[in-house]
Amino acid sequence: MQAEIITIGDEILIGQIVDTNSAYISKALNKIGVSVYQITSVQDDINHITKSMKEAEENADIIILTGGLGPTKDDITKRTICDYFGDSLVQSDAVLDNIKHIWKTYINKSLSQVNIDQALVPSQAKVLMNKYGSAPGMWLERNGKVFISLPGVPYEMKALIDDTVIPKLRKTYKFPFIQHVTILTYGLGESLLAERIESWEDNLPDFIKLAYLPGLGRVRLRLSAKANDKKMVEAEMEAQVKALLPQIEDIFVGFETDESIEAVIGKHLTALGKTVCTAESCTGGKIAQSFTVHAGASKYFKGSVVSYATEAKIDILKVPEALIKEYSVVSGPVAEDMAKKALKLFKTDYAIATTGNAGPDKGDSNAEVGTVFIAIATKETVYSEKFELGNHRTKVIMKAVNKAFEMLQKEILKK
Amino acid sequence: MQAEIITIGDEILIGQIVDTNSAYISKALNKIGVSVYQITSVQDDINHITKSMKEAEENADIIILTGGLGPTKDDITKRTICDYFGDSLVQSDAVLDNIKHIWKTYINKSLSQVNIDQALVPSQAKVLMNKYGSAPGMWLERNGKVFISLPGVPYEMKALIDDTVIPKLRKTYKFPFIQHVTILTYGLGESLLAERIESWEDNLPDFIKLAYLPGLGRVRLRLSAKANDKKMVEAEMEAQVKALLPQIEDIFVGFETDESIEAVIGKHLTALGKTVCTAESCTGGKIAQSFTVHAGASKYFKGSVVSYATEAKIDILKVPEALIKEYSVVSGPVAEDMAKKALKLFKTDYAIATTGNAGPDKGDSNAEVGTVFIAIATKETVYSEKFELGNHRTKVIMKAVNKAFEMLQKEILKK
Repeated sequence: MQAEIITIGDEILIGQIVDTNSAYISKALNKIGVSVYQITSVQDDINHITKSMKEAEENADIIILTGGLGPTKDDITKRTICDYFGDSLVQSDAVLDNIKHIWKTYINKSLSQVNIDQALVPSQAKVLMNKYGSAPGMWLERNGKVFISLPGVPYEMKALIDDTVIPKLRKTYKFPFIQHVTILTYGLGESLLAERIESWEDNLPDFIKLAYLPGLGRVRLRLSAKANDKKMVEAEMEAQVKALLPQIEDIFVGFETDESIEAVIGKHLTALGKTVCTAESCTGGKIAQSFTVHAGASKYFKGSVVSYATEAKIDILKVPEALIKEYSVVSGPVAEDMAKKALKLFKTDYAIATTGNAGPDKGDSNAEVGTVFIAIATKETVYSEKFELGNHRTKVIMKAVNKAFEMLQKEILKK
Repeated sequence: MQAEIITIGDEILIGQIVDTNSAYISKALNKIGVSVYQITSVQDDINHITKSMKEAEENADIIILTGGLGPTKDDITKRTICDYFGDSLVQSDAVLDNIKHIWKTYINKSLSQVNIDQALVPSQAKVLMNKYGSAPGMWLERNGKVFISLPGVPYEMKALIDDTVIPKLRKTYKFPFIQHVTILTYGLGESLLAERIESWEDNLPDFIKLAYLPGLGRVRLRLSAKANDKKMVEAEMEAQVKALLPQIEDIFVGFETDESIEAVIGKHLTALGKTVCTAESCTGGKIAQSFTVHAGASKYFKGSVVSYATEAKIDILKVPEALIKEYSVVSGPVAEDMAKKALKLFKTDYAIATTGNAGPDKGDSNAEVGTVFIAIATKETVYSEKFELGNHRTKVIMKAVNKAFEMLQKEILKK
């Protein structure tokens, strides 16, 4: 079974916002065995929306539209859907009650006519209640195809997808089984990797597809299988992965899950009752920020000294000036001293330190752009590694952050 | 003149990556007066790519494709384009030289056949040299339409768009003038705002469109004008904005530009020869990280103490324990003391401090989820403000970061 996603809004087409809704919906659909044939972003324009609905109906059984359900004049999705189905708008009392409830609880202002009009829905539509906003989701069926219209505000859309749309799809249809396995590799370029595993790839069964996803110094291998027989798919996937792993043993980092590496580290640390801190120079606080994005970070993350300026390394971390003079500020010994000092300052079990040159110019040292030293300190040991991470500033920073997390994870798993 | 963007890759359609390329390209095209009619994400499939190219050609004069140019088997864009133009692949010596240069400088491994094959391009294509990677961009013209194929790796695509594609488009075509003005408002919901400015909106000329963009507690009003006569557009836009502003005086925050607020602050500070540091609790390093993403940040940004744990505030920032006991760790006096201490530690002209509860649980204080205090310190003064930023963790953090930058900008502009 195939789906198409249509995201509606001029703000997407002028690049003012990045369409993150499509990726969220695609992932949710894929999990239940629905592949997405195409994603189309169209303008707030009746003809354009109608055209895209027609085209989507040719390829897909499930058509999901997001956006264009707000109360203001630039939002015309509802009228367009109504015309498309030759239907007329009627007031939904349930939606009006929901709007009244939201207004009473969160807004504390009287309802205006434009808000009341948000309770109007095509008479054929099943309403999908939106607990976070006034624009309802809608579900309309015709000739065995279903059109689902959702608000464009991401957290409203997400709640509707998770709580209402996916359960309702599962109840309505029978889906084939889809399985994705993503393998993270490090240290071999896409093309060399492809050469190495060529004969394995050539022998993959038809229902398993392989994709190479390079980025930030890693290559992810994504295997996607799709068939009706769940057991057969799982067995074949397992066999193929088992055949592949010995061929990539030296570059295998792990299997990728939906969780980020720092979230996994956070769980390890919480389970072990251990804590971490950082001393960051070239990564500028990104490691700290990655930890603290996650709820519950205060259990294991104590803090960071972002010693961006060399003086800050000396004044706050108390890295000896002589050490910096001897080895330069971008060096293994300085990274290690930063980690040791941070460990003491924050009284943690682990410390990560970074010092390097993210570019575009050489900074306080003579280090080449892209040279980064990362150190890990524990109560028992301290060590550092040197990396050359290319010449693109934000990439250098992100690669360094990834490396730091990989080193820390290795250290934690040693125990 | 209209463009269409086609992004190619199964990884988009299974939701493994968010397509950020389209927004970047759309923004760049809009700036030079090209509107984007549609964005389409399609599979790594020859028929699907061909179909989307045909459809795009019907609506657009400029068709930009990204993705599918890598060396591995799932990447088939180049062959598809070649077929579409009835062309054949020939080796580009310039591209091969570029690949050899990249391999020699960054990869330090011998070239394999798949890499050499990346130098193959359709014979009709003008090569757009990719300085960050081995897959070249390509420019093909037919019947007054141009197809531009770019690699999908975002930083390679960005460099090609900025340095090559946009300059070449400007040289090749004459574009109408497009102007966007985005006005940031705070404190009034989308529907109430729409009611308030209804008569003004109804009287907008046809060539100016208005859109409401709600998010993170703000509503952005985006005015988009497009016409050949640049002077007329600018005059009319100015007149319309002038007519609007008195109606939204109480909720007007400012005009939004493409530059992030911290980049603007960085320019101010550099021009003034002033420096800044941060002491961050609930924002967890995000303010530091936002500054240091920008090249040249070391001129004005000295560093940060991310004092996530209360002990770190006491041990490193030397906030008196008594002060924390008296007012609680989430309080104006603690925020102000953090800012003062950071100012001293880093010897800067400005310091920003944050302390709050981003949720989902109450932390070391009894502060409600969403309560954040932000302080600004200079050599002459220190003050703080209290904010209630809702109950969504990442939104609370991002809103606090925005508020902090707004406060700092105000302070800098006072001088």
